[in-house]
Amino acid sequence: MSRKPNTEARRAEIIRALQSVMATHGYEKATIQAIAKEAGLAPGLLHYHFKSKQEILVSLVTSLADYGQRRFEQIAGKAESPMDLLNAYLEARVGLGDGAAAEIVAAWVMIGAEAVRQAEVREVYQRAIATELELLSELLANCLRERQRVTTGSRDLAAALLAMMEGAYQLASATSGIMPVGYAAQSALRHAMLSIDAAPLATAS
Amino acid sequence: MSRKPNTEARRAEIIRALQSVMATHGYEKATIQAIAKEAGLAPGLLHYHFKSKQEILVSLVTSLADYGQRRFEQIAGKAESPMDLLNAYLEARVGLGDGAAAEIVAAWVMIGAEAVRQAEVREVYQRAIATELELLSELLANCLRERQRVTTGSRDLAAALLAMMEGAYQLASATSGIMPVGYAAQSALRHAMLSIDAAPLATAS
Repeated sequence: MSRKPNTEARRAEIIRALQSVMATHGYEKATIQAIAKEAGLAPGLLHYHFKSKQEILVSLVTSLADYGQRRFEQIAGKAESPMDLLNAYLEARVGLGDGAAAEIVAAWVMIGAEAVRQAEVREVYQRAIATELELLSELLANCLRERQRVTTGSRDLAAALLAMMEGAYQLASATSGIMPVGYAAQSALRHAMLSIDAAPLATAS
Repeated sequence: MSRKPNTEARRAEIIRALQSVMATHGYEKATIQAIAKEAGLAPGLLHYHFKSKQEILVSLVTSLADYGQRRFEQIAGKAESPMDLLNAYLEARVGLGDGAAAEIVAAWVMIGAEAVRQAEVREVYQRAIATELELLSELLANCLRERQRVTTGSRDLAAALLAMMEGAYQLASATSGIMPVGYAAQSALRHAMLSIDAAPLATAS
């Protein structure tokens, strides 16, 4: 499975080009021609590195998920408790402020929308969402356990937080000057904390 | 401004056709030809009723907002307190269960995604979001007031709930079998109630 470093760099360029094209034009208009043009490569070279457009998309979703994961790990380094870890996760996922992140968020919103009507995108998107839901449920269950709460609600709570984050991406990308500044990460953490504190004690039943 | 009933019915057919085409194919592929075909009308007739595709879209967004508003008013009829009203609002917006609603939600997700990259869609979408944010802030402020809480956080809370709802639409349309059943309306109400109870007393400062 090991590839030459040169191949990896070329593949990364192509994936990044799909991200740019999708952020501005959507998946449909992201033809192999358009991706090649954005990457400054010959279309034939794209076919050499990827079998199909879907294969580039799968790699893009993987790379976006990896980006989130790396950000999480960076921030999580200082975490000393399950609550710190949860905080780091939400910060990593929602607290995206700089210019590069705006493109990533817009590309993610496009992927989510295309997933509604295109089976090949839906498949990849679904898998990424299922993974996030699993990870977030686990982080929440650990917080609940630490506070001696029942963990039965952790999956519903994870779903609500995931919805809040997806919606925050959508609104950040599609509106400007309407949503309050910095509400998203703060609200997600607040909702998590209030819900954890409101959960029944594990010993109470 | 009054139109003949026949004209209104024709316009409604065209708007409904755009909704169907968008839910399955997105805004870009919803050409005047495709909308006319879906409505079973001659393309020329569309041009008679609407100046442009954007004009149909504006009417669609208005009609989707009206649909939500009507559902809200129906449920709100029995409301006896600000909390009942808030509950009715969230039920009307998130508790969409039947088949017709799935198309409405998918069309709305498409509109949101197209708003990221098309100025003409963005303008219409932004206005709808700003209206919802205003309405929801007001409903929340009333709940806070009734419980003698400060209302300063009502806009941030409204933003968080709006994000949660937009995200729930997105996830309901783009995934199946992953999200827990019925988490969305319940979570939104729960988050609102916990946040209201956690707000500082108005007399405490």
